[in-house]
Amino acid sequence: MRDNGFIQPLLSPRSVAIVGASDDATKTSSRPLRYLLQAGFEGPVFPINPRRAEINGARAWPSLAALPSVPDHAFILTPTEQALEAAEECARLGIPVATILATGFSEDRDLGPARVEKIRALCASSKLRILGPSSLGAINLHHRTILTANAAFAEPDLPIGGTFVASHSGSMLGGLISRGKARGVGFAGLVSVGNEIDLSLGEICAATLDDPNVTSYMLFLESLRHADDLRRFAIGAAERGKPVAAYKLGRSKVAAELAMSHTGALAGEDDVADAFLSDCGIARVESFETLLEIFPLLKRVAPGATAGRKPRVGVLTTTGGGAAMIVDGLAGRDIEVVTPSAETFTRIQATGVPVQHERIVDLTLAGTRYEIMKASLQAMLEAPEFDMVVAVTGSSARFQPDLAVRPVIDCATSGKPLASFLVPDAPDALRMLAEASVPNFRTPEACVDAIAAAYKRRQPVSFAGVRPPCGRASRHLDELEAYALLANLGIRHAPSVAVAMAQQPTDLPFPFPVAVKALSASIPHKTNVGGVALNVSDATALRGAIDRIAESVSRNCPDVRLDRVLVQPMTAGLGEVLLGYRRDPDAGPIVLLAAGGIYTEIYRDRSIRLAPVDPATARDMISELNISKIFQGYRNRPPGDLEALARTIVALSQLATEEACSVVDAEINPLIIRKAGEGVVAIDALVQLEDKGENNHGAVEGAGER
Amino acid sequence: MRDNGFIQPLLSPRSVAIVGASDDATKTSSRPLRYLLQAGFEGPVFPINPRRAEINGARAWPSLAALPSVPDHAFILTPTEQALEAAEECARLGIPVATILATGFSEDRDLGPARVEKIRALCASSKLRILGPSSLGAINLHHRTILTANAAFAEPDLPIGGTFVASHSGSMLGGLISRGKARGVGFAGLVSVGNEIDLSLGEICAATLDDPNVTSYMLFLESLRHADDLRRFAIGAAERGKPVAAYKLGRSKVAAELAMSHTGALAGEDDVADAFLSDCGIARVESFETLLEIFPLLKRVAPGATAGRKPRVGVLTTTGGGAAMIVDGLAGRDIEVVTPSAETFTRIQATGVPVQHERIVDLTLAGTRYEIMKASLQAMLEAPEFDMVVAVTGSSARFQPDLAVRPVIDCATSGKPLASFLVPDAPDALRMLAEASVPNFRTPEACVDAIAAAYKRRQPVSFAGVRPPCGRASRHLDELEAYALLANLGIRHAPSVAVAMAQQPTDLPFPFPVAVKALSASIPHKTNVGGVALNVSDATALRGAIDRIAESVSRNCPDVRLDRVLVQPMTAGLGEVLLGYRRDPDAGPIVLLAAGGIYTEIYRDRSIRLAPVDPATARDMISELNISKIFQGYRNRPPGDLEALARTIVALSQLATEEACSVVDAEINPLIIRKAGEGVVAIDALVQLEDKGENNHGAVEGAGER
Repeated sequence: MRDNGFIQPLLSPRSVAIVGASDDATKTSSRPLRYLLQAGFEGPVFPINPRRAEINGARAWPSLAALPSVPDHAFILTPTEQALEAAEECARLGIPVATILATGFSEDRDLGPARVEKIRALCASSKLRILGPSSLGAINLHHRTILTANAAFAEPDLPIGGTFVASHSGSMLGGLISRGKARGVGFAGLVSVGNEIDLSLGEICAATLDDPNVTSYMLFLESLRHADDLRRFAIGAAERGKPVAAYKLGRSKVAAELAMSHTGALAGEDDVADAFLSDCGIARVESFETLLEIFPLLKRVAPGATAGRKPRVGVLTTTGGGAAMIVDGLAGRDIEVVTPSAETFTRIQATGVPVQHERIVDLTLAGTRYEIMKASLQAMLEAPEFDMVVAVTGSSARFQPDLAVRPVIDCATSGKPLASFLVPDAPDALRMLAEASVPNFRTPEACVDAIAAAYKRRQPVSFAGVRPPCGRASRHLDELEAYALLANLGIRHAPSVAVAMAQQPTDLPFPFPVAVKALSASIPHKTNVGGVALNVSDATALRGAIDRIAESVSRNCPDVRLDRVLVQPMTAGLGEVLLGYRRDPDAGPIVLLAAGGIYTEIYRDRSIRLAPVDPATARDMISELNISKIFQGYRNRPPGDLEALARTIVALSQLATEEACSVVDAEINPLIIRKAGEGVVAIDALVQLEDKGENNHGAVEGAGER
Repeated sequence: MRDNGFIQPLLSPRSVAIVGASDDATKTSSRPLRYLLQAGFEGPVFPINPRRAEINGARAWPSLAALPSVPDHAFILTPTEQALEAAEECARLGIPVATILATGFSEDRDLGPARVEKIRALCASSKLRILGPSSLGAINLHHRTILTANAAFAEPDLPIGGTFVASHSGSMLGGLISRGKARGVGFAGLVSVGNEIDLSLGEICAATLDDPNVTSYMLFLESLRHADDLRRFAIGAAERGKPVAAYKLGRSKVAAELAMSHTGALAGEDDVADAFLSDCGIARVESFETLLEIFPLLKRVAPGATAGRKPRVGVLTTTGGGAAMIVDGLAGRDIEVVTPSAETFTRIQATGVPVQHERIVDLTLAGTRYEIMKASLQAMLEAPEFDMVVAVTGSSARFQPDLAVRPVIDCATSGKPLASFLVPDAPDALRMLAEASVPNFRTPEACVDAIAAAYKRRQPVSFAGVRPPCGRASRHLDELEAYALLANLGIRHAPSVAVAMAQQPTDLPFPFPVAVKALSASIPHKTNVGGVALNVSDATALRGAIDRIAESVSRNCPDVRLDRVLVQPMTAGLGEVLLGYRRDPDAGPIVLLAAGGIYTEIYRDRSIRLAPVDPATARDMISELNISKIFQGYRNRPPGDLEALARTIVALSQLATEEACSVVDAEINPLIIRKAGEGVVAIDALVQLEDKGENNHGAVEGAGER
């Protein structure tokens, strides 16, 4: 990342050139000039079009070189090859920022790579910073800079406010701005980041962190790219108390494929991205509309507010059915709806309302009365058993917003978060709530989604100690070497003896039955090549097993010379898990805990965090796994040693910080969970080291080839 | 179920009495009279209030008995005890229908049961039919009958149309009517069914099936009650092509608890209800707003339209990001987004638009042009590879609905379903689409939810052959008796030999190792009492195992005299499943297939259908289970005998129709799946028969006590 100097010419340019501006109003290339003039942009605007003398009343210029002064920002609307030429001219002329609209770079499998390389070389060899390519532009509403080809910005009265939008999809800016307008959200700026070949989404957002006009961030993501930049930005945003919400595509494989064809990004696993966003303190919403409704709530709930336990919500309602939708939804997202304590209930009863002491405080019988609703809400907001309170209002919100919604507004200054869901269609009441910055939701689903997303994000931690990205994996360790590496981290493995193929093993330091495995760094997946024998019961059987493994391996891997096998005692336990560490190409170092055996894939029962993790986080990971139930006294089974498991997770995650370590991937599968007090034991391990060759620390090249 | 005579006095009364009508406009009891008069109800209205001469300009009467004529419908607004008295008077006077507002019946654990009994007795001994108690009333917009205490009906210009609403929650009627109005949905009638002590939701809906004013049904359910009535109605609706959509609470345990406190219903398992609704051809939506948006789509997609395979959807868009939200969502709901065939793509290209041959037909580069969009849509609607087409429109839907939305409307007469999702806030375009009855969605989530719900419902089957509900389970069979019952159905079990405790078993008809299990109808859960020994390797070990079982059982179950054990060979296979049948108290006979062992509970990996099922349905059930992957050649394993499994599911499900059978519950756990061609084998079975005592066929009592 270079300095933030690009942000002023990008978002607050004093002058703008529009390369390829058209005077044909039906063409996309006519829009930026029109919108810029319409918005009342105050500096000079230079349309570049050698075939026109004037466009939309502005003098047109034949080339960038012909301009009377060097513009701050050039928006290049010409087709791919000409756009490249224009960018080169920008660099020559000392223009600090250019935005490229054309496609044909990252998304073009054939001609793209060479073009991408040209852009990179251009930026490396000059002071030019480039937004895109495939960017629909950059908009700064506070600076009257509507520099975009997106038709949505023909909108009169664009809603100005504090939200800054960065999006992989340029067309989505339109949907966000019109929906924001309808829901009382105002925008500071919007950027379509395109391919992010030079300027990344995270870098752009980070450069706006100290802009007082920007108070929150809305991200529309198709994939995780330049994750280090994104993480650095997210940490900065958390430090400044500026909330970040994201909608991310790619839950399905099909969507990942789309992202590829759309922006050339190769999407990684969605649940890695999910863990990344949570660990960055970014609220990932599940439904699109939540993105527009979540900010007032995010401003009241800090990341990690209920770390290590479930959030506890109190619900007050004037309509049973409406509240039940919220309760049902929250329970489905692992949030507790808590019954008021006896003390709280007594305070609510003191309002004189006939109310039952139940999980939901149902004021239906009280009718809609300001004083009762306000006093009840206040009692709940002051009650220690709730992290936040949701008020669900029925038809009165439509007919008598002053009675039904005013008490919510008047209570919202409490230090405890309060959210409002309105059951009827009640636009006036929603407007009143929005104007008062009270979290308010049009649907029960968005209300639930926002609460879940707000509490799911964790306090982001600095990654100062984390080693920079390394080269690609090349070399495997053999199982014994892998155990030695784990042992250095303090991770236990099963007793293991290497036996030469020809040797007749006697004097094993453990009793039969044993497991026998091909021992070679060249055979990482032993089972697939017949390289494993289990439950070998005596010396004769052991000899036979070794011979069979030799035969199998030589048949399946004719190029591998197998010298040794590994012999281990058969190790029993309460069950098994998979514990993994890897330097994810998108998210960076992660640690992963999963159900072992075939269930890893069949049920995708897993928990992921950015590495390294502390013991509390390791315990959270364990509790997130469904399979963990069988280690927690399930059906009268003895409890498993989950503390040892937590220690082992912490230990493996330290690979992220080890100075001398070049581990790209390490997987213990299975890790046997024994009874409480008896520890956990690795009985297989697979470790890959990074390529020590010329691509070492080749982050940029690596990223380009992903 | 009695005859449908109640429906005219319930929904189209010629005259109405309002018992306990108030002239205090702040009181709930003032509303029904006010709304009725305001709506222009044409018949006589009799407010009953002994302390008033006139209310709202209508002459008040001291009692029902004092009325000059017998009204069709009495709405009773008085508190619980007086309401009971009023209902008794209705019965005496020959009033055909009474609606009771008061609570204190099913939801009151102490005083409720006796009151419920009184209502039942009253209805049984007279011609009176009762709606509620705890009903907010019944509304017929075509008949100007706004007979409700729900404040939402103060709404001017109530939206009249073809949708009939039946709801367990009275307050939700308000939310539905205002949101319906905002989204162009019109209502024929709305009923708050309350406790359903007499008139059930299904019974009421069924009675409106031939009303030409009613074209579709919207249900808001808190639980499944009177499921037979509901099923009968659903079959009738499907026969008439009148679609039914339902939002059902109770996905979480907490919500089930709420339903209990709210309406006194004990909610069963939500996934049983889910299977019930699908098998009834009812579209269950996940999000509230979908309920308002789904009908135009349901009218175009018949239940079971893509039975036995995934629905195939084509997506056309003017905005990549917006379409990706739809694709991502559909993939998450198991719906395929299909790439156009080469032929279809050629037809689209013929429009002259620069479009890539990809999964999504992306017209972004074409701009928004009526002819191109229409021709492309038409090509897709005529293409055999799609079951339906979704058109996703960007900002142009907001600014140029005539260009962007008109082609969708003009294509919607195609025989193939076409749905529209608009990315921006575009109320005018939504209105145009709604007026043209084109399925249109405000959010990507509702679009996806509606499509998934429409295709998930199955063609409802008649349950003519299904035996009526039976009494509660009382008696278990022992394992040998259970096997005999299964054998009669054609279900294979492991070879089994009963051995007397004292006997020294010799000459077993199968080799060691064996399993030994306590054999007694009094010990249904053998494992819990130490009644099982596995992998018993020889005769000596067998003797020891029998003695240990004897000791364990006599210690754990001192009252049981254990005479015999069951000995079976250890049976290996590729894996195991649980196969169950039960007469669910809510849904009726169901068949359930689930992952076996501890995974049944930990992952809730299961598939449920109303019994009996045919082979195609059994195959669908298998394919719905995640664990089935391991029987389908997963990781080079041999494939399992899934055809034998399907036959076994069909066989067990026949318990629903067996004339002589009184099975309440039958569970084969585990059922061992062997290699293809080798069949499936039950190695344990648990069967419960119904109580043959006085409660036999005591459906009504049973329901009351659930």
